[in-house]
Amino acid sequence: MDRLIEAIEDKQNPSVVGLDPTEALVPKQVVASFAEEIAKQVEDPTEAPAAQLSVAFFEFNRAIIDAVADIVPAVKPQIAMYEALGPAGIDAYSMTCEYAKQQGLYVLGDVKRGDIGSTAAAYAHHLSGVNAGEHAFDPWHEDAVTVNPYLGTDGITPFVEAATGADKDIFVLVRTSNPSSSELQELELASGERVYEHVADLVEGWGAETIGANGYSRVGAVVGATHPEEGKALRARMPHTFFLVPGYGAQGGTAQGVAGMFDKDGMGALVNSSRGIIGAWKKSGKYSESMSADDALDLVAESAREAAKDMRDNLRAVLP
Amino acid sequence: MDRLIEAIEDKQNPSVVGLDPTEALVPKQVVASFAEEIAKQVEDPTEAPAAQLSVAFFEFNRAIIDAVADIVPAVKPQIAMYEALGPAGIDAYSMTCEYAKQQGLYVLGDVKRGDIGSTAAAYAHHLSGVNAGEHAFDPWHEDAVTVNPYLGTDGITPFVEAATGADKDIFVLVRTSNPSSSELQELELASGERVYEHVADLVEGWGAETIGANGYSRVGAVVGATHPEEGKALRARMPHTFFLVPGYGAQGGTAQGVAGMFDKDGMGALVNSSRGIIGAWKKSGKYSESMSADDALDLVAESAREAAKDMRDNLRAVLP
Repeated sequence: MDRLIEAIEDKQNPSVVGLDPTEALVPKQVVASFAEEIAKQVEDPTEAPAAQLSVAFFEFNRAIIDAVADIVPAVKPQIAMYEALGPAGIDAYSMTCEYAKQQGLYVLGDVKRGDIGSTAAAYAHHLSGVNAGEHAFDPWHEDAVTVNPYLGTDGITPFVEAATGADKDIFVLVRTSNPSSSELQELELASGERVYEHVADLVEGWGAETIGANGYSRVGAVVGATHPEEGKALRARMPHTFFLVPGYGAQGGTAQGVAGMFDKDGMGALVNSSRGIIGAWKKSGKYSESMSADDALDLVAESAREAAKDMRDNLRAVLP
Repeated sequence: MDRLIEAIEDKQNPSVVGLDPTEALVPKQVVASFAEEIAKQVEDPTEAPAAQLSVAFFEFNRAIIDAVADIVPAVKPQIAMYEALGPAGIDAYSMTCEYAKQQGLYVLGDVKRGDIGSTAAAYAHHLSGVNAGEHAFDPWHEDAVTVNPYLGTDGITPFVEAATGADKDIFVLVRTSNPSSSELQELELASGERVYEHVADLVEGWGAETIGANGYSRVGAVVGATHPEEGKALRARMPHTFFLVPGYGAQGGTAQGVAGMFDKDGMGALVNSSRGIIGAWKKSGKYSESMSADDALDLVAESAREAAKDMRDNLRAVLP
């Protein structure tokens, strides 16, 4: 986790921008501006809307990345938003990761993959790339990915090995930010623990061999901003586990609420906001449908930059 | 689940072929046969091996699909194997699904996705496609997908809605086939139940509104062939839940072991074999490195066909 920690220290900002575009979050004129180009490219006209939106997602992301690259240490593209568009969307995801990496950002791929050992080994190529040596090829351009723990150790080990080999990281779901997360994660075990506490202990163990110079392992945990008390308790329970904290902003998490998820040095957690940053243009009061696509992208960028600064300052205010 | 059940009845065969290609499972000369074509297409030579393998995966799958399409009701491509190659692999996955569907097979995408509500809604486009009406576009060509339950109901509901709208299905992980699955899934709860039993009850509930003509809902369960006793108990516990049963063959599951996962009419479960079918050519004793690519693909096809027939006959022998 040292590369991420250095990036956070460099920017003095423990926040990450979630690049989760949807059709509603991209100004209409930006999407429309690609209509002609795409119509010429696709073989079947039914493919055009998805292809057009994919290109628009990438341009939208690029504008945001350019606007926040000197403010935040990391971005977190959510692959589901791209997968929703089919293979064309996957191309936009990969291009987004590549572009963010080129701008010096730590790229956290929110893919939440998880499977049995041999299959997890295939997914782990997200981190290790294809081939080795002089023909090494990294198609995904991620510095870390999120992973689901439901299958246990043999589904995690291949990711830990790939992360170690490539100087990358993983973040395992422990306590997610959504309302229904309690249905499984909060169940009380016969031992008296909750399921998520048991998972927390597994996660701390999965990382034990990979603790870096800053005291954190390569195996982080996803702990929702919507659970401040549990997050604080997990911080004490998992001293070598870095937290990815989603659910800030639009989902209800606050700077005060996440303060307890940091360690005594103000490190140990990375707080994500998606809609609050990338959708800030919608609340700017400056948007108009008659704007040009370029002007709309400028507004997206400027609004995202201001929102990212606000989030940084709000987090700084609650940290030691 | 009615479309799947009809396909099983039509073929009198409750088995599914897992299309999980790896570099080791595709004859070398098949991969080599695409070298020249790919070298001309890629911009950067480091991309060539992944692109070449992606094309080889598709041709390998096509040979197998052609060989088994009149024997099995369904195929189950494991997306991880394709994702391992980057976006080029994703294209091969989508093309594989499309081709299998064109041959009349039920296509079960083993994607094991799972996320919070708004993100699960994006993933659910695997089933609902992009756009609606006359511009409807289905980029994934899947009839069902597998889903991870760790995030609870709000991560499942969007998939159930998409499945209902598109006459498709989902299969939720309950008790997976891998050794470490016990770490979480077998934990004893304060209530005396195991975690997987609690998940089983959630799954039965998630499907309750979608029970079809054959008595099974659109929300199936993944129950590993490596847990015969638990599978039998789950069969009784989940009367409206169809089972996808991985772990047969290479992972150790047997026809006798899975017999208890079927209902009294010999329905209610679909048993998967991947390596046992698609890798059967390696055990045929007929392969030689000096074969042509076409001859090697013929051997792959013929061996897969024989293995699929054997599996069908072994399952028929234990069913009522």
